Amino acid sequence: MRDPQTAARLMSREELTSQAAAVLSRLRGKSPRVHCITNSVAQNFTANALLALGAVPSMTLSGEEIGAFVARSDALLVNLGTFDRERREATSIAVDAASQNGLPWVLDPVFIDRAEQRAVYARDLILLEPKAIRLNAGEFAALSGQRHADAAPARETVEAYARARRLVVGLSGATDLISDGERTAAIANGHPLMARVTAMGCAASAIVAGCLAVEQDTLAATASAMLIVGIAGEMAAEKSQGPGSFAAAILDALYVIDAKMIDARGRTGLQR
Amino acid sequence: MRDPQTAARLMSREELTSQAAAVLSRLRGKSPRVHCITNSVAQNFTANALLALGAVPSMTLSGEEIGAFVARSDALLVNLGTFDRERREATSIAVDAASQNGLPWVLDPVFIDRAEQRAVYARDLILLEPKAIRLNAGEFAALSGQRHADAAPARETVEAYARARRLVVGLSGATDLISDGERTAAIANGHPLMARVTAMGCAASAIVAGCLAVEQDTLAATASAMLIVGIAGEMAAEKSQGPGSFAAAILDALYVIDAKMIDARGRTGLQR
Amino acid sequence: MRDPQTAARLMSREELTSQAAAVLSRLRGKSPRVHCITNSVAQNFTANALLALGAVPSMTLSGEEIGAFVARSDALLVNLGTFDRERREATSIAVDAASQNGLPWVLDPVFIDRAEQRAVYARDLILLEPKAIRLNAGEFAALSGQRHADAAPARETVEAYARARRLVVGLSGATDLISDGERTAAIANGHPLMARVTAMGCAASAIVAGCLAVEQDTLAATASAMLIVGIAGEMAAEKSQGPGSFAAAILDALYVIDAKMIDARGRTGLQR
Repeated sequence: MRDPQTAARLMSREELTSQAAAVLSRLRGKSPRVHCITNSVAQNFTANALLALGAVPSMTLSGEEIGAFVARSDALLVNLGTFDRERREATSIAVDAASQNGLPWVLDPVFIDRAEQRAVYARDLILLEPKAIRLNAGEFAALSGQRHADAAPARETVEAYARARRLVVGLSGATDLISDGERTAAIANGHPLMARVTAMGCAASAIVAGCLAVEQDTLAATASAMLIVGIAGEMAAEKSQGPGSFAAAILDALYVIDAKMIDARGRTGLQR
Repeated sequence: MRDPQTAARLMSREELTSQAAAVLSRLRGKSPRVHCITNSVAQNFTANALLALGAVPSMTLSGEEIGAFVARSDALLVNLGTFDRERREATSIAVDAASQNGLPWVLDPVFIDRAEQRAVYARDLILLEPKAIRLNAGEFAALSGQRHADAAPARETVEAYARARRLVVGLSGATDLISDGERTAAIANGHPLMARVTAMGCAASAIVAGCLAVEQDTLAATASAMLIVGIAGEMAAEKSQGPGSFAAAILDALYVIDAKMIDARGRTGLQR
Repeated sequence: MRDPQTAARLMSREELTSQAAAVLSRLRGKSPRVHCITNSVAQNFTANALLALGAVPSMTLSGEEIGAFVARSDALLVNLGTFDRERREATSIAVDAASQNGLPWVLDPVFIDRAEQRAVYARDLILLEPKAIRLNAGEFAALSGQRHADAAPARETVEAYARARRLVVGLSGATDLISDGERTAAIANGHPLMARVTAMGCAASAIVAGCLAVEQDTLAATASAMLIVGIAGEMAAEKSQGPGSFAAAILDALYVIDAKMIDARGRTGLQR
């Protein structure tokens, strides 16, 4: 058994970029259906991000039909951005439908560091076995019961959490850290303007779900999604004058990004 | 009486473009109020499309006030994109208010091919006599009980349906097919990027409602709306690098489109 | 005591621009958290406007957690754009939390001229002492019981209303009029395209809340917000081909606007 203190294997740049190119190609070929339970702030941008990349989004929250939508989907996103009764009922039905149909699902525990009920709810959802969670440092701290809410957690902490929960953690930050506890990807792509557009993280989580629909290796799917989004962000920033033009440009970038761009731009970051 | 198997008269390019120019001019002159019951994914883009063209949107769903809003509007859109109790109650009150005030309304039966409850509900709504329905091939199949969900239905099938239900069908596709059973418009404008922006069809349906507010000939209004949207899509594609810039550019195009552009760009498509 | 008929002091261009520059600088330095109760049409654009300027938005409406969110915020926006039970419950809890924590809040009484229930509700909310209200001429008429709904009210009427209610009125129009009854700012910036993008006023109201979070002088905060938005609108129009590109460009402008641009472009309008 691996000592929990030992770092997981760090994935190489070549491994990550070739993986992402393969996942992207499959996603474009299969156009997977991704059902998204997400907040009303993020719905439009999330749907457009999935469409730009080549997936097919659906967004209904109605308890009467969400089971049927999920059953006909290839992956599910659960985003806590709006925390109301309707979405919790929808989540319960949707996660059930995903489990019964063997579909992967992703949890984005938005703002669980702002209200304790959210954190409690997110911890309960994790017992229902999402394949991956995508979140930021503050949300990770709220989830894992750590102190320093905004500082990036140590690599080992993320790896130990992933190993213990048997899921992939996709932690966004200056360097994205993605780990299942055995392997870790450290991605240095991205751009500060991504933090100036609402729903950017929500859209990234939806893209994780899209990649899970076409890639069984959860770590590969999650790391590929975050690499693609980070590179698209850099491409968009080069064509933008601010966050308004950036939001449009990143959708354009998700539409045109290909294996060559991924190989040319993908960067790994060293972690402690 | 006309034999149901006989094709309706196919409208000429000149008829369609001159009609659309006249409808557009009236819409800009009158700035009709269009109340929209639509899904939260589509609300913002739909409102912006109406504003860009010159109409005035409102979007409330509250049962307590939607009657008052519809009564002060010039047309109503009912879009099933979010299928929840709130929207069904709102729809019931709104359609009632439209009928009492003699206002035209349009049904967009979004995703009725993904959940049977939606199809049932849409069929019930059609009994309440919308002037027009705007939908894609899969939705038409679910509505009319046909088999091949994604293939474009035969022209005669669309015409027979329109005639039997006494409404105008606005079927979007590679060639848009608009018919009341007596006359048929086949419009070849549009661009593949339109399918890569969420809510594009929803916005088109709202524009149908806007045109109905200023044109009593339902077929003319529906065909004009779809011609205008298709041409705006082509204009936008010429200025776009992908779906993000396209979404902004089509709003710009709806703002500047005029009789000359409609005449220069309008194209009809031959149908079997 | 001042005679209620006497006009308030008209603020100078220099006073307004230097104030706005100072408020903007503080807002960028402090990144205040602004909780927004707003309609689903406006949520995404409002969040992006706050982020572009440098504030941090949150948008939850859930009664179970909105109190916690507001308590950790620096200001609150209450926008009536969607008038449903959920938002009224949320508003009640949120305004209470704002009062208990001494946070400023802003009311945007959207469309109260379209349904009487909204006007009644807005009048009740004003008794709970918002620091400022931001609205257009039709909404001001509905609020203050005036006749001519769409014509701009006389300056004295606005000033008298502000004085009587002990709040700041931020009235948008060809010339924006901002007054607490003692001082009045008349701002001539802005652009007609602002009326062609949905949620522009809602976003402006959120920016008023953002400025209130960093400026205790309510008139200065409100006038600064409206000056900044008006100038950003002019900057955006110069780079736009229509309302679609304009919506992106105004977010870019809010991101880059600085003291120099405010000083170069700020214009006051003379009022009777």
